[in-house]
Amino acid sequence: MLAAVDGRRLWERHLAMAKIGRTERGGVNRQALTPEDAEGRNLLLSWAAQRNYSASIDAIGNLFVRRPGLDAQAAPVMTGSHLDSQPTGGNFDGVFGVLAGLEVLETLDDNGLTTLRPIELVVWMNEEGARFPPTTMGSAVCAGELPLETALATIDKEGISVGEALAEHRSLIPPLTERELGENAFSYVEAHIEQGPVLEEKGCRIGIVTGIQGLSLFEIEVQGDEAHAGTTPLGSRRDAFVTASELAQTLRKLIHDPMDILRFTIGRFDVAPGSPNTVPGRVFFTIDLRHPDDAVLARTGQRLLDACRRQDGPCSVDARLLFESSPVTFDDNVLDVVRKAADDLGVLHIEMISGATHDAKFMVGRCPTAMIFVPCKDGISHNEAESARPDDLTAGAQLLCATIHRLATAESGLDRN
Amino acid sequence: MLAAVDGRRLWERHLAMAKIGRTERGGVNRQALTPEDAEGRNLLLSWAAQRNYSASIDAIGNLFVRRPGLDAQAAPVMTGSHLDSQPTGGNFDGVFGVLAGLEVLETLDDNGLTTLRPIELVVWMNEEGARFPPTTMGSAVCAGELPLETALATIDKEGISVGEALAEHRSLIPPLTERELGENAFSYVEAHIEQGPVLEEKGCRIGIVTGIQGLSLFEIEVQGDEAHAGTTPLGSRRDAFVTASELAQTLRKLIHDPMDILRFTIGRFDVAPGSPNTVPGRVFFTIDLRHPDDAVLARTGQRLLDACRRQDGPCSVDARLLFESSPVTFDDNVLDVVRKAADDLGVLHIEMISGATHDAKFMVGRCPTAMIFVPCKDGISHNEAESARPDDLTAGAQLLCATIHRLATAESGLDRN
Repeated sequence: MLAAVDGRRLWERHLAMAKIGRTERGGVNRQALTPEDAEGRNLLLSWAAQRNYSASIDAIGNLFVRRPGLDAQAAPVMTGSHLDSQPTGGNFDGVFGVLAGLEVLETLDDNGLTTLRPIELVVWMNEEGARFPPTTMGSAVCAGELPLETALATIDKEGISVGEALAEHRSLIPPLTERELGENAFSYVEAHIEQGPVLEEKGCRIGIVTGIQGLSLFEIEVQGDEAHAGTTPLGSRRDAFVTASELAQTLRKLIHDPMDILRFTIGRFDVAPGSPNTVPGRVFFTIDLRHPDDAVLARTGQRLLDACRRQDGPCSVDARLLFESSPVTFDDNVLDVVRKAADDLGVLHIEMISGATHDAKFMVGRCPTAMIFVPCKDGISHNEAESARPDDLTAGAQLLCATIHRLATAESGLDRN
Repeated sequence: MLAAVDGRRLWERHLAMAKIGRTERGGVNRQALTPEDAEGRNLLLSWAAQRNYSASIDAIGNLFVRRPGLDAQAAPVMTGSHLDSQPTGGNFDGVFGVLAGLEVLETLDDNGLTTLRPIELVVWMNEEGARFPPTTMGSAVCAGELPLETALATIDKEGISVGEALAEHRSLIPPLTERELGENAFSYVEAHIEQGPVLEEKGCRIGIVTGIQGLSLFEIEVQGDEAHAGTTPLGSRRDAFVTASELAQTLRKLIHDPMDILRFTIGRFDVAPGSPNTVPGRVFFTIDLRHPDDAVLARTGQRLLDACRRQDGPCSVDARLLFESSPVTFDDNVLDVVRKAADDLGVLHIEMISGATHDAKFMVGRCPTAMIFVPCKDGISHNEAESARPDDLTAGAQLLCATIHRLATAESGLDRN
């Protein structure tokens, strides 16, 4: 029979992690490479040290905790997620995948179970991209999809680079073994809260995630002229706010999707100089666009860019695609292991596409990969009110444990499909 | 005949002042009570000291430079403006009125002219209100229209209060005589660039300003829910940006004025948390509304508030009037002195209403008051590209000099009207 995870231990660790970078409204602000991020990782490392697991770090700051296998030369089965958060983030996004992974390692120990292959828990650096864009920086660098030098040179709003912040981070955590970027892996399975409402609406504890929708990130810059708010007739103005807000409306109408599958978000909208009595001279805004179908995503993105370029009026508009991430499909052999384990556990599950991007995306090119979702309250995430039920987290960790155990004891490799 | 001002000296002082807080694009950032503001005032005080003019300061940081009259007990004729700027301000807004005032004092000296009444040059504290709202803080406190304690407790974005910033400011300028708030004045005339396009369009060097339009400042807060941009269907969102930008469009359509007299500006529009992949949970924005007719202003303001309260959709909207300033009419006797002086000088002039608020507004209740405008290039102000021609500044200073001289030598008081 399967080894049972300790749901209470798992829950208490979520509570302990939630204290680090805690906000007034009960969320967390634990952005990548801040002192709070280091504190969160140190807490995890202290739990790993109690079990004598070895730890290592790569050049972009991804953290690895390893439980040995019988075959020291075998490529490890990997699991994990991230501990960094949005500026007003919740207590489960990323954290669950990390703590569920640790729970797997400890459950195997507690039950005296050995595995052929090592199991590695990974804490990816800067999944959120809130302080340093883009998202999933650590896994992208590890996969060779983002050059290390580019990532290290990325600066935050204060002009601090990832390289500088990483050097400071290393001084705040214990000395760790250095490892190469992108070492071999046998397979990767990431557990995560859904961050959407589907599982809760369907009354399911588990989502078996078959892929991730695609994402395009656009930057739009509107340039007008600053002018005095009291003296300048409206007809003589080049008001960047007026043009930008009209453009935002135009774009929103353009992407109307009766099926409500397309995701369109203007999350950043900076108006300069931002003085009540000065007509704004410049607006900078972002569009986050997502869809599971690559063709729809590309076509819609092009329509948005065309509309920006067609925008008439007194201001100039510059629109560009900053970042593009195609939809991905997870590995059917790993998914079969997850399906079989879920059936054996008798847990109610559905198959679904992830609306959010995850680090698992960048493991797809490296090894057979899949994800497991658990519900979160009202589908709310990237919000201090993010919430999840202990029973659901336990069910997710249990399924992860069964899955990882099977993968780590498998005699032969998984066929890629 | 009239004493002639030194146009070259006046222009060179503008160039010297423009170096303090200079921005890359040739404007200035010399916001109230910053080290740059102190440096600007110190430069002015150094010029005043060369003439042995006495200087004093009041409890809100308004600065006074005095040229004595024959009757030391007589209430002074006052002139002046401000040296603080917008974050991306120009080289003439406020500066011209201060330097033209100093030019008047020195021209009278250079020509050996005495006056019955003292003449005082005032540098008002925080006219712009960019760092510490509202605008015209120093003159409002001086007039008893804004309580001193309220002004001192006002904080900037970093949480620094006016009181704290003023204490630091005092340590950066020489020790000065303290004076009471709102001491008696015989009359007040302020020179300023127009900050609008009218004089330039009409080919006039001088605007005789008969009043100031009214201003209402509103704050609007839109509250929604933060959510994950990738997972949350558009139909399930409470997106504060969507509601706020739609509301901005609705309000803008509502205030449509075919005459283009009404001024409507959304100058500040803060979107939180401002992360590309998080649906905005909160937007805060301001509306600056102006009109010369009090009734139109009040009626339009009420329509805006009603529309905010009627706004439907998933987010809550809170709208409030933060600040209100009625239209003012300047004193006809002082205006007659200005008109007569302009006719004598043979300078082309028109009469006009000021679109911008000025410190002169708060002198109207204290003594007979008027203003003189000179053109600025393309009407551009509150902009680093703000520009004015030396000849126009000289003409304005010359008219100010003739006006102040007449007022300061007048045997009797001015009838109020």
